[in-house]
Amino acid sequence: MQRKKAVVDAKIESASIAKGLLVIHTGTGKGKSTAAFGTLARALGHGMKAAVVQFIKGRSDTGEEAFFRSAPNLSWHVMGDGFTWETQDAERDHASARKAWELVCGYLQDETINLLILDEFTYALKYGWLTIEEVTEALHQRPSMQHVIITGRGAPDALIELADTVSEIHLVKHAFSNGVQAMPGIEF
Amino acid sequence: MQRKKAVVDAKIESASIAKGLLVIHTGTGKGKSTAAFGTLARALGHGMKAAVVQFIKGRSDTGEEAFFRSAPNLSWHVMGDGFTWETQDAERDHASARKAWELVCGYLQDETINLLILDEFTYALKYGWLTIEEVTEALHQRPSMQHVIITGRGAPDALIELADTVSEIHLVKHAFSNGVQAMPGIEF
Repeated sequence: MQRKKAVVDAKIESASIAKGLLVIHTGTGKGKSTAAFGTLARALGHGMKAAVVQFIKGRSDTGEEAFFRSAPNLSWHVMGDGFTWETQDAERDHASARKAWELVCGYLQDETINLLILDEFTYALKYGWLTIEEVTEALHQRPSMQHVIITGRGAPDALIELADTVSEIHLVKHAFSNGVQAMPGIEF
Repeated sequence: MQRKKAVVDAKIESASIAKGLLVIHTGTGKGKSTAAFGTLARALGHGMKAAVVQFIKGRSDTGEEAFFRSAPNLSWHVMGDGFTWETQDAERDHASARKAWELVCGYLQDETINLLILDEFTYALKYGWLTIEEVTEALHQRPSMQHVIITGRGAPDALIELADTVSEIHLVKHAFSNGVQAMPGIEF
């Protein structure tokens, strides 16, 4: 254990590359988006400039949006008209995802943006609204010091491959299984 | 898949219990603390009152602390003198953990605190600074609507059992394996 720790420490100390990271939070557990928002707080605390684009979450009563809305150096966009199974209108979802992606492409060419968060982004790939090729190409071409965090279940292999850091969040248990309703401040 | 989704939706709709949740973020992956801080932003956005007690992280140059420091309704405490393998002084660590725990016990009896975050808390149990019995007892006795989030590797079974929601974050890959240094805004 001590030796393993020493090896890891040595690795960290010898790490000298500075670059913009592609970070992915995937898996079925709770915490993918909130971990992105916690990192957002961290980046803003260092005086960085950031943008958030939320894919397919139509609700606008979230605590995070209310909290971050007034933060300086931050642009916050909520795209789409709710989850697909709520709108039941695949064409509208597709069009709204394409619009969100155009916005993202703008940020991915903007060197002044230090951190870009694409929240619930994997669904746009899953539903075929965007192709993995255009997404990896745009990520690959972004400014070299720009950090990007992508959240959502089922991140495709090509995205995992391109990423620098990947966390997979497993659901061990969830309060709603015991009849607990979605609590404000915790679930939204 | 569609049927599974329907079952889950029905479960969520029939969920009617409102209670303070015990949420645990454990595992070896990146995102345990940031997910707690993202939830903190969420709770503060709903006008809730919160407290954060960070165990054994001595550094005070983190972006999250800088960002949240000025937030209203929030108390932020960084305990300890750095990680144990840095201080090399087990007695001092133990004393400082006991002091932090006294502070936590105060919050666990304070009904005005809606969300309490015990960051990197599992280490206090792992190193034997606190007993699992005193911890579960204090958590059990807390105000019924108070949410608590505990982060850290290796959460013990008794804590998992007591929890309402548990996420285990797995490390799929990490930038430092490829020689990338800890980037401000992402790692701290």
